[in-house]
Order: sequence, then C-alpha cells, then structure tokens
Amino acid sequence: MTRTVLESKTKTVVIGFDEPFCVIGERINPTGRKKLALELEAGNFDTVIKDALEQVACGATVLDINSGAVFANKMAEDPRYADNNFVEPPLMKALIEIVQQTVDVPLCIDSSVPAALEAGLAACEGRPLLNSVTGEEERLELVLPLVKKYNVPVVAISNDDTGISPDPDVRFAVAKKIVERAADFGIPAHDIVVDPLVMPVGAMASAGQQVFALVRRLREELGVNTTCGASNISFGLPHRHGINAAFLPMAIGAGMTSAIMNPVRQVEMEAIRAANFLMNHDANGGEWIRFAKVIEAVEGGATFAEASAAASQAAGGRRGGRRGRA
Amino acid sequence: MTRTVLESKTKTVVIGFDEPFCVIGERINPTGRKKLALELEAGNFDTVIKDALEQVACGATVLDINSGAVFANKMAEDPRYADNNFVEPPLMKALIEIVQQTVDVPLCIDSSVPAALEAGLAACEGRPLLNSVTGEEERLELVLPLVKKYNVPVVAISNDDTGISPDPDVRFAVAKKIVERAADFGIPAHDIVVDPLVMPVGAMASAGQQVFALVRRLREELGVNTTCGASNISFGLPHRHGINAAFLPMAIGAGMTSAIMNPVRQVEMEAIRAANFLMNHDANGGEWIRFAKVIEAVEGGATFAEASAAASQAAGGRRGGRRGRA
Repeated sequence: MTRTVLESKTKTVVIGFDEPFCVIGERINPTGRKKLALELEAGNFDTVIKDALEQVACGATVLDINSGAVFANKMAEDPRYADNNFVEPPLMKALIEIVQQTVDVPLCIDSSVPAALEAGLAACEGRPLLNSVTGEEERLELVLPLVKKYNVPVVAISNDDTGISPDPDVRFAVAKKIVERAADFGIPAHDIVVDPLVMPVGAMASAGQQVFALVRRLREELGVNTTCGASNISFGLPHRHGINAAFLPMAIGAGMTSAIMNPVRQVEMEAIRAANFLMNHDANGGEWIRFAKVIEAVEGGATFAEASAAASQAAGGRRGGRRGRA
Repeated sequence: MTRTVLESKTKTVVIGFDEPFCVIGERINPTGRKKLALELEAGNFDTVIKDALEQVACGATVLDINSGAVFANKMAEDPRYADNNFVEPPLMKALIEIVQQTVDVPLCIDSSVPAALEAGLAACEGRPLLNSVTGEEERLELVLPLVKKYNVPVVAISNDDTGISPDPDVRFAVAKKIVERAADFGIPAHDIVVDPLVMPVGAMASAGQQVFALVRRLREELGVNTTCGASNISFGLPHRHGINAAFLPMAIGAGMTSAIMNPVRQVEMEAIRAANFLMNHDANGGEWIRFAKVIEAVEGGATFAEASAAASQAAGGRRGGRRGRA
C-alpha cells in the first residue's frame, strides 16, 4: 500500500490508499488575490495567519504555500522586483516561517521558481511536499535533484514540453516518464504524487471520466498517490460547488488520495468527510459525527469557518493551530 | 452495453450503462406512511396524485407503486382485510390507474404479494418494472413465470432463504443464481436489475465499499443493471442526506445505474445530476444548467418541489405530468 509521508515539526500526515483523503489547503496563494499580494508587499501577514488557522480548523491537514506574488509598487521603484527569482525566495521563506509559527501541519512548497522551492526546503521543518515537477525536461533536471537532496515527496504534473495533452493516455505516459526519471535519481514511486490534470467538464465532456480512469491506472500500474486542483472540474459552470461536491467523492471512489483545494467551503468538505466514511476511512464514523455538529452550528447561523474553529477549540485544539492551544 | 427498457403508454426509459442514472421515485408507498394509508383506505387518492406530479417534476423518470397498505379500520369490520392477498391486488390496480392518468412515466410495480404483482401487470400500460424477485425458492417459482408471461424486467434482490448475508460474496452468488434461474425461464440478463442490498454504514463500516465492489462485479461478470434503496446507507446517522449525497455519485462512478429513492430532495438530486454530467451522460451540461436555475429559485425562497414544478412547466411540461400539459 503506497504511503507518502509528510511531516511538520510535530505532526505526521500520510497520503495513502488506506488513509482518509488528504486535503491540502490552497488559500495561501497571492496569484489572483490582489489584496493578499498588496499585504505581502507591505510585509503584512495578517491574512496569511488567518488563512492558515481557518484552513486547518476546517479540515486541511496540509497547507500549500505559494509565493507567486507580483509586487507592483516595489517594481515601479526597483526593477529587480520584476523578476520572480528575486521576489519569491525571500517571500517563500517568510511565508513558511509565519505559517510554521501559526499552525502545526505539514506544508506544501509551491512555486514555479526553483530558487523559491529551495528557499522553502531550507526554511521548512519536517518533511514538506514539493509542488511541483512536470515532464518538461528543464523542470525535471532542476527539481528532481532538490527532491533527492532534501529527501521529500513531490507533486508531478502530467504535462511536458508539448503542453497539456487532451489525450489521457498521453498524460499517463508523461506521469510514467516522471516516475521513471525520478527512479533514476533514486526517488521512489511512493514519493511521487501525480496530478493527472483535471479539465473543466463544461469544456470537455469526458473530463470527469478521464480523471477517474487515469487515477485508477496511476494507482494500479504505477502505484502512486494522486492529487489535483479539484475546482478546475467546474470552471465556468453555474452552481459549481455542486459539481465539485459530486466530483470529489467520485474521484475518491476511483482512488484519488489528495486534492489541493479550498477547505473553507462546507459543501466540498462535507462531501469529502462522507466519502471517507463510505471508504471505511472513518472508524465508527467519529469524524462524521463531529462534522455533523459543525453543520448544526452553521444551520444555527455561524459561518463554516467559525463553526469549525469553535469545534476545533472545543476538541482541545487537536485540529486547531498552535495559537489556538497557547 | 446492457439496456433495460421500460415503457409507459407514451414514454420509453432505458436503464443502462450509457444512460443518465435512473431515479425511481419511492414515495407512493403506504408502508410507514400512516396518513397515506388512511387516505387510501377511504378511497382518497389526493396524496398519490400530488406525489406522482411532484416526483416527476423533481426528476424521477420511473415511479414505484407499492400497495403494502394496512387498512386497520376496515380490518376491524371485516376480517378479510387482515389478508394482504385480499387488500393489495385491487389497491395496486387502483393506484396504477390513478398514476397513469396523472403522469406519463413508466411504473415499477412493488409488492410482496404475487397476486398484487399480477394485478399491477394487468393494469399497467407499456412495459413496467416488476419489484421484486429474491433468491428465495418460493419467490423465484412464483415471480419468474410472471416476468416471462408479461415480458417485463424485474428487480432481483440478493437475499435468499437464509436471509441477507453480510458477506458480499454470498450476495453476489445469490444474484448470480437468480440470473441463471431467470435464464432457465428464457428471461435475459438485461431484464434483471439487481439490488445488491445496501447496509447502513453506521452499522457496518465496509457497507459503502461492499456496494461499490459488488456493483462493479455485477456489471462486469453478470452484465446486469443495478439498483438500490439508496437511503439505507445513512440509516441512523446524523445529517444523513450528506452521506446519501456522497454515496450516490460514488455508486454511479462504480457503475450503479438506478436507485429507488425520494426525488423530492434537492441535495440527492443535485448529486445525481452532477454525477450524470461527470459521467458524460449530460450532453453539453444542458440538464445541469437547467437544474442550476431550479437551485436559484430555491435560494430565492421556493421549495424544491415548487421550483422543480415551475421549471418543468416552463419547459412546456416536457418533464411534467399529463395534467401539466392539459
């Protein structure tokens, strides 16, 4: 049974075929979040702290840390800020330090800049997940040595120098190539978490079935764990959270073991917790019964984040952040 | 590709591997509905008519008609009413006639009394689904000749004279026996819709995984369509509709092709419509987009039944009842 082991300083999280679905919180990401980018530019980490606490309280067991900020004001003053190689490494270090002071879950270091990945690896306590390598030659040669050097697991995205193929067989072949190349570096398959790439079902009618079939193949033929950007499936559609809430249980039923997603959404988290129960990954339904109390509080008028935080604190901060326990 | 063809006088519904999930509305059933039983005893079919219209508007494409009423008042006056063989056949005939006047979907004739099944078969226009045969010897010998005589498909429940086995291999073997016995009568496998029996996940932790594995085997090894009483999975649990809403997409992903369920519940119907889309059984997402408008109306204050009925009427009664088109 494939197990990908992640660690913070004090916590271990296993992504695996026999584990509850691993929710990797996606919110600490300045891409497309202008307000957050402005705050980070000003050295203000209030939103980062809030997002870290909320996501963990809502059920994320790993937090993605993306340093892809554009510092428009600084750029106007100093042209070096137009270069992500200049901006991201110190920002990644700062983000990781703040988040590690705030919550105790393992982290996922997310950047397209190799120097930012390495800065993150240096700053991280424990065993983070590196996000990501692709099948692009340059990327393979830059990232896999880091994966080997730091002995960490890595997200492998199934596109290559030709782009993202609409053909799932090609995407499988790319994933296979990455697993084989990693093996050349001495990196085992259980440390590769493949993202088979989720297309929007509104644009490609077979998108859902492609993912379910790919996940089964990746699991059976390559023995790897899988992840995805779950909300892609519903891009452009009305009432998209309803699509997400069916997609996640179906993906879990097909064998997907993690997703990078927004955990501060009741409907998706409810679907995942129910699916965990139905996969026999929630002994005696204990997590479901606790979650049902959160839903009751939401029905009583609390937001999902508030109700989750209250439940987390009531449980002695077990699922809360470090600050929650102080 | 297995196709089970059901017909009303004017409509054809196919249960099949390449079809949208078939929702069989369960509400016309006096078992455990005291008010409905009292109405039927008084010859009042108002609730039956309302339930037929609502269920079809909400998305049922087949309606189950269960005649299992206990007529307590009449029984006190006339001991013959203590016998279901006396009560059910005329009641089944009356229910079917009323429902056929009200809506135009195919019906599912549901009784434990063979004479009621036969009364239903005689009263039904088109090609109804017979519900049900089991692996019990007496039941096989009573029901399969009816199935053959009327050339209709039948629901096969995977229990036998030893009861319901907690072992899914035994339930598969019972299903296989029914399919083989049916073949002896000249009944093809595509006219058998197997109910693998859904246990409550709160009582049996492997209940979900059992169903998913059984559905795959039934489909791959016996080539049969499948159905279930979907809400059993969440029996006894808090916030059970959340469990149902994850179970249905997972079952659909595993290959289940129909369920006997309450369609007048937004959360379950939303999960099914999203799953149809993700299985590539909703061309261009047309049904999803129409459904999203129903949800909008619910968010605006309508009940799900009201919003569904309004949408159905606006669509020219295409999914509405006969009365809606008059």
